[in-house]
Amino acid sequence: MSENIIAETPKPPYVAVIFTSIRTKREDEDYAQTAEEMLTLAATMDGYLGIESARGDDGLGITTSYWRNEDDIKAWKQNGDHLAAQRAGRKRWYKTYKTRVATVTRDYGSE
Amino acid sequence: MSENIIAETPKPPYVAVIFTSIRTKREDEDYAQTAEEMLTLAATMDGYLGIESARGDDGLGITTSYWRNEDDIKAWKQNGDHLAAQRAGRKRWYKTYKTRVATVTRDYGSE
Repeated sequence: MSENIIAETPKPPYVAVIFTSIRTKREDEDYAQTAEEMLTLAATMDGYLGIESARGDDGLGITTSYWRNEDDIKAWKQNGDHLAAQRAGRKRWYKTYKTRVATVTRDYGSE
Repeated sequence: MSENIIAETPKPPYVAVIFTSIRTKREDEDYAQTAEEMLTLAATMDGYLGIESARGDDGLGITTSYWRNEDDIKAWKQNGDHLAAQRAGRKRWYKTYKTRVATVTRDYGSE
């Protein structure tokens, strides 16, 4: 699902959406396909700065997406295809989830 | 490494540290042990609100830790055992990493 790349975000401030979820045990081919489609779709949205995603064998996953501002997040949340994916997520794919919206104030790293 | 639990954080605002990393391919028994020790140690720190961690098969991992305020984050970053783990991380365990400090302004979820 992820591209194994750390997002190349600009200098803060910018906003982050931290989406933590635990998958249902049920196998579901639609899930991987939709997840991939959502990554591709998000990247076309205005204000998109990058995305990072990881899911461990225990079923817990974290996806962080980065955006220019709150309006960009709202537009992404209301996107029609994304709304459909959110509904399927609530109904079938996620046992539980939590979304946190945050303002990144500083960052540092190895590069 | 993770406990497969979504952190039960209080009502925002609070701060989040988003640590994204890509592991070196090298096997290293110390890594898992130290990672586990750091999770246990973090939980004893003042202002700790919770932690979530996931690493996929592609080597990309995201650990989000939640804290009451910036001072708590600084104290955790300066903790002696944690400093030693950070050094080992930079030298041996992580090919690349990025740390983002953010203020969580709102959240919502399935529960």
